[in-house]
Formats: sequence, C-alpha cells, structure tokens
Amino acid sequence: MKATVHITLKKGVLDPQGKAIGQALHGMGFGEVGAVRQGKVIELDLAEGTDEARIRDMCDKLLSNPVIEDYRIDIAGA
Amino acid sequence: MKATVHITLKKGVLDPQGKAIGQALHGMGFGEVGAVRQGKVIELDLAEGTDEARIRDMCDKLLSNPVIEDYRIDIAGA
Repeated sequence: MKATVHITLKKGVLDPQGKAIGQALHGMGFGEVGAVRQGKVIELDLAEGTDEARIRDMCDKLLSNPVIEDYRIDIAGA
Repeated sequence: MKATVHITLKKGVLDPQGKAIGQALHGMGFGEVGAVRQGKVIELDLAEGTDEARIRDMCDKLLSNPVIEDYRIDIAGA
C-alpha cells in the first residue's frame, strides 16, 4: 500500500522560502500571484495493512516538526 | 483562487533525501516502510480567473526542474 504525507507550515509561521518563490514569480512577470507557501510531500511504500495510527506515529516522531508544521495523511485506495 | 502544485522527482531519478528518511524510519523500528520519495508542494494564492496554462508556465519556468521533476496542478474548486 501507498501513503502520502503532506506537510505544511502552520498558519502564522513565517515561510521565507515561499516568500522568495512569490517574489521570484513577481519578478518574472507573474503579477497575479499573491501569497505562496511551500510544503513537503513524502510518499511511503508500506507493508499491506499498515495502520493509519502507525503512519501518524512516523509523522510525529520523524517526518514533521509538530511545533511549526501540520500534516495530512492520504492513504491510496482508502 | 488557490492552486496547489505537487512536484515529485521523475521515476528513476535517485532520491537520496527519500532514502535517508526511509533508513531513519527503519532505524526507529518502522520496518513496514519500503521505498520513500520526497517531493514538494507549493500553494499559490492567485488572482481570480488565472488560467491553468499560466500556472503551467510558472512550473516550467521556475517552480520545477523539468529535467528531473514532474508536477501536478490542483486548482481548488475546479
């Protein structure tokens, strides 16, 4: 089975990388762009029947920084 | 309107960061994890009515590296 973890900065946390992308897009003439935020996606190949709680555990312990990041888990075919 | 761009490495392109995450998870006792790939998500706030072709243009010119990366565009509410 496959799971995808989307990790994004919490609202209110400054995102300098997103800001830099936004400014670069503006500089290139994409004036329609407002705020930009950058996050991560982690695609996991997992043994069949892996519990979502187990994936949540991975997120809390390694994949995300719960102080400043939120995550969302998508399980393929679930 | 909001658009989300998912950028992932093409199949076959080595992903050392994903590999490192996989090994770290293994070391922490998450033996059910197989391959891991890491990608990026970019969330864009855009002026209403921005064309998908325009977003594709941003991806090709700045957001992704078309040599090694694929991207997927999700437009919220579309």
